[in-house]
Amino acid sequence: MRIMFPFAAIVGQDQMKLALSIAAVDPSIGGVLVFGDRGTGKSTAVRALAAVLPEIEMTDCPYHCDPARPDEGCELCRSRAASEIPQKTEAMRVPVVDLPLGATEDRIAGSLDLERALSAGEKRFEPGLLAKAHRGFLYIDEINLLEDHLVDLLLDVAASGENVVEREGLSVRHPARFVLIGSGNPEEGELRPQLLDRFGLSVEVKTPQDLATRIQVVKRRDAFERDPAGFAAEYEAANAEVRDAILAARRRLGTVAVPDETLEKAAQLSIRLGTDGLRGELTLMRAARALAAISGDAVVGWSHLAALAPLALSHRLRRDPLDEAGSTTRVERAVGELAAA
Amino acid sequence: MRIMFPFAAIVGQDQMKLALSIAAVDPSIGGVLVFGDRGTGKSTAVRALAAVLPEIEMTDCPYHCDPARPDEGCELCRSRAASEIPQKTEAMRVPVVDLPLGATEDRIAGSLDLERALSAGEKRFEPGLLAKAHRGFLYIDEINLLEDHLVDLLLDVAASGENVVEREGLSVRHPARFVLIGSGNPEEGELRPQLLDRFGLSVEVKTPQDLATRIQVVKRRDAFERDPAGFAAEYEAANAEVRDAILAARRRLGTVAVPDETLEKAAQLSIRLGTDGLRGELTLMRAARALAAISGDAVVGWSHLAALAPLALSHRLRRDPLDEAGSTTRVERAVGELAAA
Amino acid sequence: MRIMFPFAAIVGQDQMKLALSIAAVDPSIGGVLVFGDRGTGKSTAVRALAAVLPEIEMTDCPYHCDPARPDEGCELCRSRAASEIPQKTEAMRVPVVDLPLGATEDRIAGSLDLERALSAGEKRFEPGLLAKAHRGFLYIDEINLLEDHLVDLLLDVAASGENVVEREGLSVRHPARFVLIGSGNPEEGELRPQLLDRFGLSVEVKTPQDLATRIQVVKRRDAFERDPAGFAAEYEAANAEVRDAILAARRRLGTVAVPDETLEKAAQLSIRLGTDGLRGELTLMRAARALAAISGDAVVGWSHLAALAPLALSHRLRRDPLDEAGSTTRVERAVGELAAA
Amino acid sequence: MRIMFPFAAIVGQDQMKLALSIAAVDPSIGGVLVFGDRGTGKSTAVRALAAVLPEIEMTDCPYHCDPARPDEGCELCRSRAASEIPQKTEAMRVPVVDLPLGATEDRIAGSLDLERALSAGEKRFEPGLLAKAHRGFLYIDEINLLEDHLVDLLLDVAASGENVVEREGLSVRHPARFVLIGSGNPEEGELRPQLLDRFGLSVEVKTPQDLATRIQVVKRRDAFERDPAGFAAEYEAANAEVRDAILAARRRLGTVAVPDETLEKAAQLSIRLGTDGLRGELTLMRAARALAAISGDAVVGWSHLAALAPLALSHRLRRDPLDEAGSTTRVERAVGELAAA
Amino acid sequence: MRIMFPFAAIVGQDQMKLALSIAAVDPSIGGVLVFGDRGTGKSTAVRALAAVLPEIEMTDCPYHCDPARPDEGCELCRSRAASEIPQKTEAMRVPVVDLPLGATEDRIAGSLDLERALSAGEKRFEPGLLAKAHRGFLYIDEINLLEDHLVDLLLDVAASGENVVEREGLSVRHPARFVLIGSGNPEEGELRPQLLDRFGLSVEVKTPQDLATRIQVVKRRDAFERDPAGFAAEYEAANAEVRDAILAARRRLGTVAVPDETLEKAAQLSIRLGTDGLRGELTLMRAARALAAISGDAVVGWSHLAALAPLALSHRLRRDPLDEAGSTTRVERAVGELAAA
Amino acid sequence: MRIMFPFAAIVGQDQMKLALSIAAVDPSIGGVLVFGDRGTGKSTAVRALAAVLPEIEMTDCPYHCDPARPDEGCELCRSRAASEIPQKTEAMRVPVVDLPLGATEDRIAGSLDLERALSAGEKRFEPGLLAKAHRGFLYIDEINLLEDHLVDLLLDVAASGENVVEREGLSVRHPARFVLIGSGNPEEGELRPQLLDRFGLSVEVKTPQDLATRIQVVKRRDAFERDPAGFAAEYEAANAEVRDAILAARRRLGTVAVPDETLEKAAQLSIRLGTDGLRGELTLMRAARALAAISGDAVVGWSHLAALAPLALSHRLRRDPLDEAGSTTRVERAVGELAAA
Repeated sequence: MRIMFPFAAIVGQDQMKLALSIAAVDPSIGGVLVFGDRGTGKSTAVRALAAVLPEIEMTDCPYHCDPARPDEGCELCRSRAASEIPQKTEAMRVPVVDLPLGATEDRIAGSLDLERALSAGEKRFEPGLLAKAHRGFLYIDEINLLEDHLVDLLLDVAASGENVVEREGLSVRHPARFVLIGSGNPEEGELRPQLLDRFGLSVEVKTPQDLATRIQVVKRRDAFERDPAGFAAEYEAANAEVRDAILAARRRLGTVAVPDETLEKAAQLSIRLGTDGLRGELTLMRAARALAAISGDAVVGWSHLAALAPLALSHRLRRDPLDEAGSTTRVERAVGELAAA
Repeated sequence: MRIMFPFAAIVGQDQMKLALSIAAVDPSIGGVLVFGDRGTGKSTAVRALAAVLPEIEMTDCPYHCDPARPDEGCELCRSRAASEIPQKTEAMRVPVVDLPLGATEDRIAGSLDLERALSAGEKRFEPGLLAKAHRGFLYIDEINLLEDHLVDLLLDVAASGENVVEREGLSVRHPARFVLIGSGNPEEGELRPQLLDRFGLSVEVKTPQDLATRIQVVKRRDAFERDPAGFAAEYEAANAEVRDAILAARRRLGTVAVPDETLEKAAQLSIRLGTDGLRGELTLMRAARALAAISGDAVVGWSHLAALAPLALSHRLRRDPLDEAGSTTRVERAVGELAAA
Repeated sequence: MRIMFPFAAIVGQDQMKLALSIAAVDPSIGGVLVFGDRGTGKSTAVRALAAVLPEIEMTDCPYHCDPARPDEGCELCRSRAASEIPQKTEAMRVPVVDLPLGATEDRIAGSLDLERALSAGEKRFEPGLLAKAHRGFLYIDEINLLEDHLVDLLLDVAASGENVVEREGLSVRHPARFVLIGSGNPEEGELRPQLLDRFGLSVEVKTPQDLATRIQVVKRRDAFERDPAGFAAEYEAANAEVRDAILAARRRLGTVAVPDETLEKAAQLSIRLGTDGLRGELTLMRAARALAAISGDAVVGWSHLAALAPLALSHRLRRDPLDEAGSTTRVERAVGELAAA
Repeated sequence: MRIMFPFAAIVGQDQMKLALSIAAVDPSIGGVLVFGDRGTGKSTAVRALAAVLPEIEMTDCPYHCDPARPDEGCELCRSRAASEIPQKTEAMRVPVVDLPLGATEDRIAGSLDLERALSAGEKRFEPGLLAKAHRGFLYIDEINLLEDHLVDLLLDVAASGENVVEREGLSVRHPARFVLIGSGNPEEGELRPQLLDRFGLSVEVKTPQDLATRIQVVKRRDAFERDPAGFAAEYEAANAEVRDAILAARRRLGTVAVPDETLEKAAQLSIRLGTDGLRGELTLMRAARALAAISGDAVVGWSHLAALAPLALSHRLRRDPLDEAGSTTRVERAVGELAAA
Repeated sequence: MRIMFPFAAIVGQDQMKLALSIAAVDPSIGGVLVFGDRGTGKSTAVRALAAVLPEIEMTDCPYHCDPARPDEGCELCRSRAASEIPQKTEAMRVPVVDLPLGATEDRIAGSLDLERALSAGEKRFEPGLLAKAHRGFLYIDEINLLEDHLVDLLLDVAASGENVVEREGLSVRHPARFVLIGSGNPEEGELRPQLLDRFGLSVEVKTPQDLATRIQVVKRRDAFERDPAGFAAEYEAANAEVRDAILAARRRLGTVAVPDETLEKAAQLSIRLGTDGLRGELTLMRAARALAAISGDAVVGWSHLAALAPLALSHRLRRDPLDEAGSTTRVERAVGELAAA
Repeated sequence: MRIMFPFAAIVGQDQMKLALSIAAVDPSIGGVLVFGDRGTGKSTAVRALAAVLPEIEMTDCPYHCDPARPDEGCELCRSRAASEIPQKTEAMRVPVVDLPLGATEDRIAGSLDLERALSAGEKRFEPGLLAKAHRGFLYIDEINLLEDHLVDLLLDVAASGENVVEREGLSVRHPARFVLIGSGNPEEGELRPQLLDRFGLSVEVKTPQDLATRIQVVKRRDAFERDPAGFAAEYEAANAEVRDAILAARRRLGTVAVPDETLEKAAQLSIRLGTDGLRGELTLMRAARALAAISGDAVVGWSHLAALAPLALSHRLRRDPLDEAGSTTRVERAVGELAAA
């Protein structure tokens, strides 16, 4: 099993780590978009987060379902549970699936197993990348280069947790619950607002500008590549802390309260920023709740909103031709004004 | 069975709910176009309406025909009825079918079951999305991104209630009666006037701007997602009222009278607005009749026309380079002028 | 059998009804182009005309040939006639075939029956839409959106009355005599002059502007859709009159005389208008002869030419940059000048 | 057998009839391009010429070879001749093949018989349109709309008299000697000069402008269509004269002399006109020789060159931005100057 | 066997004949590009050169290998030679293969024999045009219309003398040594400089402008086409002289010396002209050596360089916006300056 | 076995030779981009380097794995090693694979063996070019003409050392460790910055401008082509020196130290140049380390950084509209400033 760079060894990049942690605590947040400079370890961070999470138990069905939740499982798992057939289970690492540039709908959603159809006259479903990503992460580098209808498909499945394939005489429906992580460079073309809005959070990453950080990144990267096992051992304890924090937050999430005044603040922020629809404030509320859970707070307050507003709202702003500030700055300014009001 | 957000729990969005209700009362109205902001729950509303309607009885044929109307059924149902073979029936929820971006004609209209043809040398029809939508709703998000010939096909089938597939040696004809709901963002490209004209009604939806509404939407949405069953139970009674109103209106529809003076008013409105053809006023008359049925009125009058003119006519206006007002405003102005005249 | 809107119940639209009637009397006129507003019942009129014509006797061959004219029939019919095998015949309604947007050449002209070829190793022809349209009407909505080579194919077959398919090892030739009706909106792109010229007649339809007509159209349409059978019964007698007039004109057509001075007038009109080639005046002469037959006149005179010149010539004019009048107006003006000369 | 409009009944169009006759006398002239107005009977003239020629004897091979010339026949005919197997022969009309818009290379050149290959595992050649045109005419309407590589293919085969297909494991070579006739409208896009140059002759046809001619054309056309057999009978004698003239010219062709001074005149003309390459004067010389043969002259002189220069040279001129005259006019002017010199 | 126009009967076109002869003496020169007027007999010249060369002995393998050089043969020939199996051999004319416009990579490089694969489940290679051209000439008319990746493929194979096909599970490698001749019209689009540079020599051909030459060309062409055998007989002796000169030059080539001062002159010329890379002077040196061998000179000197510099360098110049002279003129001017220096 | 041009006989081109040597010492450097003039022997240099390296031992698996490192081998090799089955091994030359223009993803990554699937109903993987390049070099000429998603795929595999194919029901994973060499002409379009950044080093090659060098290149090239074996023998000793230097550097690489002050310098350089991300300085550090190993230095110092900064950083600069200097010049200037600081 390939050794991953330890999550705890990532230098800086706090916003990205925050967004990923929140998605790990409450996957219903709806996907994370990462914008910014190339070569800043976006893909590494996703893989590192998945590796820091505990292994998951899986059944031996084609979708590695959760044996503890047959109701959320695939048809096979549900029928086995119904007839009380015992399942063989095994532990696996949380999957991270890369969506290659140029992937087709068949490759993503699965397709008819043509060879089987031709040789044995039998229709069998060949699961795709969505099936592989079930219970883990689906990572799309340069999502702005992907065709719209595929982004749409990915967002639909990510939102519903289910992949439905009805083509070529196939009618398959299987669970596909994953966190969608898209990365892109806004200089190379943007996603349509319709699609942007469907992502939960967005963060911007930049190349660190202080010498010490840079040297540390290079040294750690080189040390890891020369001796992966030794390097990983050094960060085992720190990684365990990250894991424990996420697991604790997951347990606490259901008990965190969201008072009306917090919702009002979230709405005021959105109105001030003129975002379309209400997905922005719904996500902001949920993300703030997850942050409260991570921080061990029982009630969601202004500080949580303020910390997450840029992540939940900045990709939902319309362009304002009279305001040349970046969207993150505009959100931060609105947060400041509201705090002052 | 997935629990749907209750129709009665939808906050605001009155025009969209009106248009959907009218289509539920008289599906011959011809499809509904929904324009406007993303994230305003358009898809949720369609699903909610379908779920509020009573379940339908279906035969076990591939098209879930109505056992009570074998004359409107598929060939199999008609032949069984003719030979008095008893049909097995079952109850099902009114179907809502999503047309994915990038769907092909084969996927929509159905196609030859290739595997069957190759392995067994037998030509069998593989029903498509139109068959699935029979007796329900076909929802197309971002219809402006769909190719013209597919929109055309959908409108043809929606208008005739029948899907005819004559290709690849197939010659299939099956009932496909559904209400077409298209949603789109006019900022992202428009439908050709030819296609716009073939939709019955259009509505525009906007993000609510008052705090109380927004907080209510977010709270209801979050409450629903955290406990779908509990939330649905709260709205059961309100949902039943909606259902009863629609069922009552369907029964009353045949008895509502349309006096000549009302037709004259509808024609005067259309002439004043310069709409091409007569589909506008025909639809206006029918929609007004459905509204009268919903309202329990025995005769269609000016108030019904006035309420529905923006929905029936605004997407049928030609662009007027000398009039910068939006088309809804132009219709409302014409309604006002005619009322004053 | 679906009940059609009665031809006699169509309100107004006289030019279109005239063109269709002439094509019904002398199909060699060569197709009718209908330009103009959407929603004006073009497709309804074609279907109504076909339904008003008497049913035709057909053999049980794949091309529903005319049992009375084996010489004009398909190979099977001709060989049966030659060997004096009696044919089974049946009555059918005059067919109206719709050419869907996006139809391929295979779908139109017919193609190899692939399933048969693969399973039984046998080459069999799968007749296309041209075969279905034999002895009836082929209706193409938005013909300006059809690819040129398909329009060309349709015009070739319409002109020769025969569909020849020589591809994929097939060599099939079957009768396909039909009247081609194309409708289009000149605002959405025009046909190449080469193709325009090959249509016999053209008419322009507009939305009626007087209140009474509009109310009548809407009322008749609504009445028909609520009770098709009852409505059709009301117009049975009027429809029978139309039918009788067409049948009488067909019988008279061979006896109508065309004097040289009428031909001279037709040529003078064409020269005055500068039309390319001689198809215009040939069609004008024939259409005028059909009109004379309908009117019961024994000789074709100036009045017949004058009535039909706009239909036969206006789509054959070159654009005149110095003359901003529409082409119909230009033809009418030339008719007026010649009458005065 | 369909009755063709008699060649002798064609009114006017002398240049086109001259070009076609010359190609019938010496097919090595290399194809005829016909430019100009639509509706002037170009296709009719080609078909009429083919029908006026005497029927040809053909063997029962797939290429209807000439039984009298086994050396020029297909492989089968040559091998039969070699082994002195007697051939069955039959008479057929000189073929005229139409190249439809949108024809593929497979359809034109022939292709693998896929059905045979799949069912019987046997590679067999399915002859294409080139095979059908062998010993006759290949007519391409709107040749300017055909893809360049297909025009190239047609010209290659026309020039070599042989169709070579080497694809898909096929290696077939069969005779395909035909006269290529292309018609086009220069207003709709031009052929590349490379392709223009490969056609032997070009003519321009225009709508006749005098009343008498026009009336005659329309009357003859109508008379023919109402009674093809009767009309054809009227022109039988005139048609026979045409046939005899062509046959006589073919016999005389080998004996007509071309003196050096005539060649010098042809070269002077070409230099004066600045045509690229020498195909122009080579064709001019041959066409003039064929004209001499038709006229019964023993020696090719200036009058023959002068008559044919516009047909042989005008499509080979480069555009002269300083000379606005049409290319035919420029050739005629050069002829005049040279005559005067 | 078709009779070719005799090489010795070609009037003028000295540069083209020189380039072809040099390629015949030293095929490693790397292909010849022929630019210029249409109708100047480019294709004829290539065919004539191939026909003037002595016939070659070939084995009965699929690549007509040279029985005298089994080390350069295909796998079959090499294995037969290794096991000393005697080969059947036969004489054949030096092949000239035409690359048709629109040829695909499969057709050029060869492909899987699909029929065989499907019927017999056996993978067999279907050799392409490259295999046919082995030991001869590959002629591409209008090479500027060929897709870049195909030109690239042709140049790769021409340079390596080997065609490697590794696709569809095939892994085939066969000798393909040929001289590539491309002709094109620079007015119709140019080759990319990358591709131009890979051709060894280039020549420009023009229509002769003196009367005597033109008359001679036309007379010879007409004489040849009327009596190919008789005409060829007239030039047999002259053709033999050409053949002997080429064969003698091939024998002498290995002994011709290239002194350093000649190399220095070649480098000076290239530097003066600013050509990229060193392929220009390498080719110039080799072509000059071949010319020396043809002329019977033992040492390559300035005169040989001067004669060939336009052929070896003019297609390798960058465009000089300050110098409007054609590239051939620029090379000739540089030759003049260097001679004067 | 084809004889390659000796690496030691390459005249000049020091930067390219340096970059290739560094990649040979530490392939984790990540690919080399070669920009510049055509005809400067880029492809020759790559082939020469591969030929100078010692032959490698390979197993008889489909991926020629290293028998000494079964842990890095393919599944077959790993399972054989696990069950202690002895492997047959053989020596082979280090592979150099050319990626042809127009190669598809199937050809590159491998694909389903269709013939096998169809005939034997068995799914077998057909390895592609990536498999062939394992343990060697993959050379892409004109990489700027390759589609982005293919460059992406190549870079992914080159970075991970593993090719994963999951399509068409295949799920194959095989080692593919190779050095990617891309060459391109920046005048013909550039790679996207995202892709540029993923290459480790870049060099620019130019045509030498002094006479002596040019003459030497031409003479060596001609000498090699006339007698490859003899020429290679002359350079055997020099080639052995190159080989020994690379092998020694590989052994020393693990012991070379990189002090913090060197890392600081590398970071300062990158900040000064404003490169995005940290891949630049990570590569610079590694390349400098490899250079130290080649030079026999125990510690990486400023001189190594200075020598390699242009190769590691110049393709990672953003365009600076205020600085017209080339990127190499900008890097050299920054190196000078830092040295002076």
